[in-house]
Amino acid sequence: QGAAYGAPPPATNDPMYGYFTAIAGQDGEIDADELQRCLTQSGISGTYTPFSLETCKIMIAMLDRDHTGKMGFNEFKDLFTALNGWKQNFMMFDRDRSGTVEPQEMSQAVSAMGYRVSPQALNVIIRRYSKNGRVYFDDYVACCVKLRTLTDVFRRRDTMQQGAVSFQYDDFILCTMSI
Amino acid sequence: QGAAYGAPPPATNDPMYGYFTAIAGQDGEIDADELQRCLTQSGISGTYTPFSLETCKIMIAMLDRDHTGKMGFNEFKDLFTALNGWKQNFMMFDRDRSGTVEPQEMSQAVSAMGYRVSPQALNVIIRRYSKNGRVYFDDYVACCVKLRTLTDVFRRRDTMQQGAVSFQYDDFILCTMSI
Repeated sequence: QGAAYGAPPPATNDPMYGYFTAIAGQDGEIDADELQRCLTQSGISGTYTPFSLETCKIMIAMLDRDHTGKMGFNEFKDLFTALNGWKQNFMMFDRDRSGTVEPQEMSQAVSAMGYRVSPQALNVIIRRYSKNGRVYFDDYVACCVKLRTLTDVFRRRDTMQQGAVSFQYDDFILCTMSI
Repeated sequence: QGAAYGAPPPATNDPMYGYFTAIAGQDGEIDADELQRCLTQSGISGTYTPFSLETCKIMIAMLDRDHTGKMGFNEFKDLFTALNGWKQNFMMFDRDRSGTVEPQEMSQAVSAMGYRVSPQALNVIIRRYSKNGRVYFDDYVACCVKLRTLTDVFRRRDTMQQGAVSFQYDDFILCTMSI
């Protein structure tokens, strides 16, 4: 009957809502430190090392279009969905559960996600996100977060879908320094 | 008399040349791991924590126009000059040598370096490079490296100095994912 007065907040039935609100408190928003705790408690990293604060910061920036540095529950759920997808991709390559994949495998994953980048850009990406010739889960996710954010930034400006966009200096700095 | 046959390589008189070549070896180039060792041995961080591998990677990207992921001695010297400048700025604010400065002070430093960014962009920058309300030396330098790299990227494309540039998608990704 309550439905007659509008649907209940969808969040209340959600198992994730509990630990999100416990950390978010009254304002219902979390910052990067709190996101790190949320993600660690959620166990999404599984046997992998929990996410670094660095990666949590750019995760927030990815969904933070109003630049408040905070994330609400709906954005948290969007992030969770994205993370599960990236984790599945990563685990597909990390068959021995070493916590790392080959740089070439990250390159394959980037292409498989539908990003059309040149071999030169792929090389730059691989070098940036690998350590001692391996890609760790946290760096892999950081790469996915940045690539998605930058591609979103580009698409939102490329309204005519011409494959080219124009930036004012301040807009360029704002978009690229946040991640 | 040797000068009659051309000037000696300028590097040989340089006190930094010794430890650079010791690490660079025959090819005369260093990658991010090697740069981290060079900078640590050079003592440029002084009493501050040595630079993270993350920061060393973007230092290389800053000067690496041909995207090889390596740095020669001349670029290393350019980097050293830039680092000394940033360190002096940082120390000016870090009067008690705590190794950190206030976020507002980083904002002042960014403006003092001549970057014209909006208050909104400054806020994003401050949040991105501070931890628990403080800015550490390594993060401060990472911020300076990124800001210089992105501004260079912009300027090189803004040949008419109109304050606006156009990017193709792949070029945009290549420039922004490398740092």
